[in-house]
Amino acid sequence: MKLSRLLVLMVSAIALPALAQEDSIKHDAEFYILQAQHAEQWAQDDAAVDEALASFRESNDGKPPNIISVLIDDLGFGDMGIPELNAVRGYETPNINDFSDQAMRMVRMYTEPSCTPTRVAQMTGRLPVRIGMGDTAVDIAGFGLPGDEVTLPEVLKQAGYSTSHVGKWHMGDISESWAMNQGFDYAQMAVHQQGQLTIFNDDAIKEQVSVAIRDYDDKYTLDDWFRPDASAMMTVIEGETGGPIREVRMETGERWNAAKYDEMNQVFQDKTMEELERLAGGKEPFFLQYWPMIPLDNTRAGRDGPESANGGLYVDKMQLLDKWLGDLFARMDELGVAENTIVVVMGDNGHFTKYSPQSGFTPMIFRGGKADTTEGGIRVDAFIRWPGMIEADGLLNSIVHVSDLYTTLSRFAGAEQFIPRDRLVDGVDQSAALLFADESKARRDHVIIYSVAKAEAIVKDQLKLKLPGPGESPIVAKFFDLYRDTREEYSVSTEVGAWGGQEFVRILGRHKARKEVFPDTAPAYGVPYEGIENIRPETQQAVEAFIVKRQSPQQ
Amino acid sequence: MKLSRLLVLMVSAIALPALAQEDSIKHDAEFYILQAQHAEQWAQDDAAVDEALASFRESNDGKPPNIISVLIDDLGFGDMGIPELNAVRGYETPNINDFSDQAMRMVRMYTEPSCTPTRVAQMTGRLPVRIGMGDTAVDIAGFGLPGDEVTLPEVLKQAGYSTSHVGKWHMGDISESWAMNQGFDYAQMAVHQQGQLTIFNDDAIKEQVSVAIRDYDDKYTLDDWFRPDASAMMTVIEGETGGPIREVRMETGERWNAAKYDEMNQVFQDKTMEELERLAGGKEPFFLQYWPMIPLDNTRAGRDGPESANGGLYVDKMQLLDKWLGDLFARMDELGVAENTIVVVMGDNGHFTKYSPQSGFTPMIFRGGKADTTEGGIRVDAFIRWPGMIEADGLLNSIVHVSDLYTTLSRFAGAEQFIPRDRLVDGVDQSAALLFADESKARRDHVIIYSVAKAEAIVKDQLKLKLPGPGESPIVAKFFDLYRDTREEYSVSTEVGAWGGQEFVRILGRHKARKEVFPDTAPAYGVPYEGIENIRPETQQAVEAFIVKRQSPQQ
Repeated sequence: MKLSRLLVLMVSAIALPALAQEDSIKHDAEFYILQAQHAEQWAQDDAAVDEALASFRESNDGKPPNIISVLIDDLGFGDMGIPELNAVRGYETPNINDFSDQAMRMVRMYTEPSCTPTRVAQMTGRLPVRIGMGDTAVDIAGFGLPGDEVTLPEVLKQAGYSTSHVGKWHMGDISESWAMNQGFDYAQMAVHQQGQLTIFNDDAIKEQVSVAIRDYDDKYTLDDWFRPDASAMMTVIEGETGGPIREVRMETGERWNAAKYDEMNQVFQDKTMEELERLAGGKEPFFLQYWPMIPLDNTRAGRDGPESANGGLYVDKMQLLDKWLGDLFARMDELGVAENTIVVVMGDNGHFTKYSPQSGFTPMIFRGGKADTTEGGIRVDAFIRWPGMIEADGLLNSIVHVSDLYTTLSRFAGAEQFIPRDRLVDGVDQSAALLFADESKARRDHVIIYSVAKAEAIVKDQLKLKLPGPGESPIVAKFFDLYRDTREEYSVSTEVGAWGGQEFVRILGRHKARKEVFPDTAPAYGVPYEGIENIRPETQQAVEAFIVKRQSPQQ
Repeated sequence: MKLSRLLVLMVSAIALPALAQEDSIKHDAEFYILQAQHAEQWAQDDAAVDEALASFRESNDGKPPNIISVLIDDLGFGDMGIPELNAVRGYETPNINDFSDQAMRMVRMYTEPSCTPTRVAQMTGRLPVRIGMGDTAVDIAGFGLPGDEVTLPEVLKQAGYSTSHVGKWHMGDISESWAMNQGFDYAQMAVHQQGQLTIFNDDAIKEQVSVAIRDYDDKYTLDDWFRPDASAMMTVIEGETGGPIREVRMETGERWNAAKYDEMNQVFQDKTMEELERLAGGKEPFFLQYWPMIPLDNTRAGRDGPESANGGLYVDKMQLLDKWLGDLFARMDELGVAENTIVVVMGDNGHFTKYSPQSGFTPMIFRGGKADTTEGGIRVDAFIRWPGMIEADGLLNSIVHVSDLYTTLSRFAGAEQFIPRDRLVDGVDQSAALLFADESKARRDHVIIYSVAKAEAIVKDQLKLKLPGPGESPIVAKFFDLYRDTREEYSVSTEVGAWGGQEFVRILGRHKARKEVFPDTAPAYGVPYEGIENIRPETQQAVEAFIVKRQSPQQ
């Protein structure tokens, strides 16, 4: 018998009462270790949470709260909500800072290291590696989020919610992956992401934002398919569940440029306001996702805009986004939905340091940025506001992973029974910690941090181990105390490795053993853009080129 | 004619009206460049400041405000007053955070890179290099602050203030340098600093805090004078101006250890409370300096203490200091002096990274620490509270240098006429910016950053140039945008060096040319500890050893 399998059996035999319950959510191994220690307290807390939620529904015409998710692209910790740090960097986010004063900051919110996996984790409640979605694709790729994932909006819809998504999506370019086919009644979404829309666009090419993309003839270039063309790729699509899906605001032969990007962002903002009004006027509780594309941007292109003392392009756009979110919060007040709506505002991963310092943002508190598994890649600003239910101007210093939002928001919505029981769900229910502002009621004390498909680090309590590679000794692996060394610069491995290194490797061992019960699967593959009614001829050609490239290994 | 001299004359001829006024404070060259551009506004602001100060005195029985200076050793930016960052590092400073809510944070307070020069700058209003006090001595050194410097308490005394100093001093081990001989009616002060008291003490030697100090026999050691002995050095002295000066709480043969350090710190706290009560009961306005030795500490030595989640030794002591300062603020309320007292709380320089991460503090927002001229060495937490006069919970993002406190506090005290006119004063008057919470009213937009005697960097606006060495081209010198790159990791020199590098070197040129009018001088030299009545025999022996060493080059 393999050791890992033996471990599972040993653990099961001793301390996994919940695993035996068919109707309980299936979690990763560490959850049951905490449960074995805190089961009694958790039962009491669950009862108190139920009571608090029932009391809320009673005061809200029997309905659960509305939910708004604002997920901001590429932000570090401290970019928003801390006026002192705004000042240090020469910009202002007054509206988000005010919002922060009304919300609880989840100080130790961990995301995944890049856009796609973080979004997958929030939508599915699962580590993206479980469905091979740990990577980020920029151009046509022909894969995405499988249709049989049970997303957060799908869970909420079963509890009677109306659902809507506006903005970035970035979980695949195939039909089954898109928001309107993944639980959102309505969606207007960019199919790809800002790489296409701000780096490969015609203005950015003139400004030579990318070293790889050129706007001058090069006689040595033979392969016209090698470099992506923003304009030939699908841009923004819109549709309702079951209805037609159409690309919007692009005509055949039209070129994508900075002005189109500005228009797109403005429409996303306007559409979000429209959707808010429509949903607020409905009878059902609603779930509205606004996932903006800015602050990411990469060309000046002579555009006006709000200006900061900092002047960095992302920072200027951050100020614009702050204004827009201020408008959104003000409209919520006007519509009378501020009080009965949970609002989560957070970043999806750390700064894209490729554009430091011109972007205006550089990592400060933590080291590294997007795509790094140092804290700078995965610790972000994260706020949750629920007036009267979650402490205003509070700080929750428990470890929270973005997947926990799936489980916790489902619980807040009274929809936890619709979370699937036939698969492993990584997100744990943090309701009690949030509602009672009590760190001892958290249900997670660790995160396993993947870079794409490789587990690179584990955090438990304030300790972080950079996992040793194959054949390397855990005794000398890099080991950090995150309170004392936020930037992971002073490894303390030689002091505690003999215990710490091995103990962390055991956590990984239990995590891997659990995968034998719930194995990782693959993403969905398909023909890009299939089902879009008004696909442009140049887009169709780009798809055909992609298919030739995909099939070429089989020639 | 030398170029630098020519520059002085050119500048004088064109734009230095104030230089011609015999009764004005003599500033460095850059001041007059700003004055030439803002003279009219400054005159208006001065009138408004006078009016505000007169109005305060009217409401305060005709008296100017009391002043309390709390200077904390080795703190970085964001260690105090930002609950989010407290949480990130697992500790709490609730009392200082509350104080911060009542005070204005000087976001861009620049100190000197280490203890002695920062304290000299605050006491004299001058760059320490002007009197050769840019360095920090740890053991017996026989030099210090010259008696003919006109210190802040000496200025204030001329305006009728009672003055008192408790705690760290660290500006020399010779009599003329000490607080009670430099304007403080009463002082109880450590003659040296924490190197002696926490690293060379008997407990620390047992814990091997220093690699250089050993507690076991080493047959290869011939020179018994080489390593400092904390117990043989002078520890804490006490006295009044003109009266006897005595060492306190050390008997002949007694050894210095961690318990003695704890006792000393507790006495400093208790004495500060006593002095506050005594001074608050007097008729004169008062100036009280409390310069604590903690949070610095270096031995666990089985001592109890407050505990943080962080657990770092400095961090735990920071929590203790927070409690003590809370007691001080509460006593101010009880004594009815909170409203008519200016309180400045700040750090003296960045973290001592030698003890990272065990201390619990590591640089985050800025790079580097104590002794570095990167922002991490010289940007510190700094708050000024003056109820009803200075905006509560405010942020002032103008550049302020610690020497500005000398000039500004003198102005607030109505004592600016006692600032000497026969020497160059670097501190500029920041009254208008502080009283009107208006960054455009600041009178400084730059700092010249020295490491001991060498100008290493210049900051102007948000730009920072690492000064080129002799014979190096300013075009390729490292040049940083501090808003966009707080940690000075992304030099933008090649873009702007041709302008920026040269312009910054010109600032240095004007600064040097001004030194031809007001040349740098030397510190005072003398016999250590002279005039202390109860000097111990072992201390006398240590002095004699020092004198042999000092004279040995002349043998």
